Amino acid sequence: MSNKIWSVVKFKIKLGCEEEFLAAHNFTDEHKSHFLSFRAIRVDENLVVHIAEYENIEKVFAAQDQGLDWLTSVEHLIEYYHDSRTESFSGIEIYSH
Amino acid sequence: MSNKIWSVVKFKIKLGCEEEFLAAHNFTDEHKSHFLSFRAIRVDENLVVHIAEYENIEKVFAAQDQGLDWLTSVEHLIEYYHDSRTESFSGIEIYSH
Repeated sequence: MSNKIWSVVKFKIKLGCEEEFLAAHNFTDEHKSHFLSFRAIRVDENLVVHIAEYENIEKVFAAQDQGLDWLTSVEHLIEYYHDSRTESFSGIEIYSH
Repeated sequence: MSNKIWSVVKFKIKLGCEEEFLAAHNFTDEHKSHFLSFRAIRVDENLVVHIAEYENIEKVFAAQDQGLDWLTSVEHLIEYYHDSRTESFSGIEIYSH
């Protein structure tokens, strides 16, 4: 049983803002250091999803402030999900190959 | 720009069936060979999510038949999302670190 955590975060990108949103993926080395791995995938014209892997729950908490700062920095490029800027879930890794 | 594909598939597990569902994660080496990486995460008591990484779209297609066979084999352990056995999305990797 691993203690690794994965998080999946959906961003609904405003029309015409995709390029600027992608260009905002210029994280500092210190920010990157919280993740075991991280990627953005393009699901649809206006839907980008972040899939992040963390060594443990402590790393999730350590990344939180910078993650929220980053979210605020791109807030003008995304549509809200009701009252929320993103739609997300996280979970503990229970199997891998 | 990478051509890697990621897929995220949600499974709503029937009450009391989580253990059996997890035990069903015994894929053959040939099935595993379609993935660059694969993991299951436990989001909630009854929600398990598969996060799969494929080298390219051809590998997604190559994995499809065995994936559907596997889904049929665990069908009795999961609740439907309306008419669908799972809720899922896929996308092309556009950024990683």
